[in-house]
Amino acid sequence: MSLLVTGSIGIDAVKTPYGVSENCLGGSSVYFSMAASFFTPVRLLGVIGSDCPFDLAEVFADRDVDLTGLEVRSNSKTFRWGGSYQDDMDDRKTDYLELNVLAEAAPTVPAGYRDSEFVFLANTAPALQLQLLEQVEKPIFVAADTMDCWIEDHLDDLKVLLKKIDCLVINEDEARLLAAESNLIKAAEKILDMGPGVVIIKKGKSGSLMCETDGEKFLLPAFPAAEVKDPTGAGDSFAGALMGYLAQNEKTDFASLKTAVACGTVAASFAIADFSLKGLTSITKDDIESRLKTLRKLTNF
Amino acid sequence: MSLLVTGSIGIDAVKTPYGVSENCLGGSSVYFSMAASFFTPVRLLGVIGSDCPFDLAEVFADRDVDLTGLEVRSNSKTFRWGGSYQDDMDDRKTDYLELNVLAEAAPTVPAGYRDSEFVFLANTAPALQLQLLEQVEKPIFVAADTMDCWIEDHLDDLKVLLKKIDCLVINEDEARLLAAESNLIKAAEKILDMGPGVVIIKKGKSGSLMCETDGEKFLLPAFPAAEVKDPTGAGDSFAGALMGYLAQNEKTDFASLKTAVACGTVAASFAIADFSLKGLTSITKDDIESRLKTLRKLTNF
Repeated sequence: MSLLVTGSIGIDAVKTPYGVSENCLGGSSVYFSMAASFFTPVRLLGVIGSDCPFDLAEVFADRDVDLTGLEVRSNSKTFRWGGSYQDDMDDRKTDYLELNVLAEAAPTVPAGYRDSEFVFLANTAPALQLQLLEQVEKPIFVAADTMDCWIEDHLDDLKVLLKKIDCLVINEDEARLLAAESNLIKAAEKILDMGPGVVIIKKGKSGSLMCETDGEKFLLPAFPAAEVKDPTGAGDSFAGALMGYLAQNEKTDFASLKTAVACGTVAASFAIADFSLKGLTSITKDDIESRLKTLRKLTNF
Repeated sequence: MSLLVTGSIGIDAVKTPYGVSENCLGGSSVYFSMAASFFTPVRLLGVIGSDCPFDLAEVFADRDVDLTGLEVRSNSKTFRWGGSYQDDMDDRKTDYLELNVLAEAAPTVPAGYRDSEFVFLANTAPALQLQLLEQVEKPIFVAADTMDCWIEDHLDDLKVLLKKIDCLVINEDEARLLAAESNLIKAAEKILDMGPGVVIIKKGKSGSLMCETDGEKFLLPAFPAAEVKDPTGAGDSFAGALMGYLAQNEKTDFASLKTAVACGTVAASFAIADFSLKGLTSITKDDIESRLKTLRKLTNF
């Protein structure tokens, strides 16, 4: 089934204990699309400025990623983000953030995207996420991400959004903030009370927790990666493979959601093994399938 | 099969965000024995002073715990420990530590314990662990715990010990310290090179990781406990149920070790639900079996 992602496209600068990567391609929709494209065709919706040095058609040349929704604004600048990681790769420091085009009007959903059945609204202002979602005719399964600044300063909009989506994919600190509850199980239950039928909490190297309104729960450790060079994009790669698997299989029952979370975990483990998109562009679907089998064996008892 | 534990018996004072527990029974061998006794009879070896207000025969009245190896020294004082936890219950601060009898000579292994087949050497000076182990005739499976102070100041003794045990059960920070390696998978491999056939790394609320010399690995999340009041004894309860399960089933193959780690995870989740031993004394074997099934369901995909 069709899968639409709306999110950022950015020029990143990343420092980790393993090296520095300047002016590299990043952004939530880029990582998402690269991971999702292992499973299903992707429709990307995003905006860049005329300064963007990357040819996205070339970046996605080997992937089934529709760029009809890529808007290039000639008088605007591309979103830029710089971040650094210390030894504990779960802790990220933002060195600078230039919203640029992201502070302007959202892109319009092209006519050819409006029948999208699976939709992922990557992190941005909840009002924009709502505005984008309203342009999709009859989505079957809508998931969204959010972050601390929207929880703190745009909670009313976010609460409206939460009633219109099927699944919230969120970091553990953000889940605690949104629910005002430090225990993650209780936090998940409070978030489910706000609207979505499923909440998936990303816990970095501690793995993930998924809870459904009918009480079903799923716990998965992170894949024990021997190489972690750059955690940037791990969460978006996770969401991409998760949604890609669901769209590919056209199912959203809990068993499918569990395998989808495992696919997300595997994609994230590849994404963090190298800088920028290299961890995802250097692998094949077979590598994902193989690591998925390993993860199943590692966690089964 | 017979299971021997040697470790501390203490008078604890614990502060957590959920309350304060003064002058409560603690110590590694006590938590271990309580958790292991759900699975198999336990032989406890430990020393207290004449000031100990607890009647251990009464504490273990309903459990099959042999106290032949409990030594009461009339001119000595019992080990005392005070600790506090902040909101992140994985971070523990030691408020005070009075070694008392633990700084004296180790107890002697009674004649009736010397044929023990499964042995757990709870955390103490590696030289003492070695001295205790030498008194056991033909152990089948020996596991040990250690901590930062022994790794830092008694590494030579610890290295001798590591060549004589089958399994090291250790916290993640200690594993990193012992291996001088921050990546846990690589740290586990380095520890296996030091001697033990199996290393089990406890990651607190992130679960556990087990690695075997032949390359087998197992990952298990922590049980998602809705109630966490006092994490004291979680690691010793984990080790107790782990060793109890192995001794009960008389097997140490990797499949058995995986289930044993799951039993440890479940016992730890009960131990932290209340102060001191209450989390373990208020449950039955059925509660453990039931939560083990839940954990299997929670992690299966």
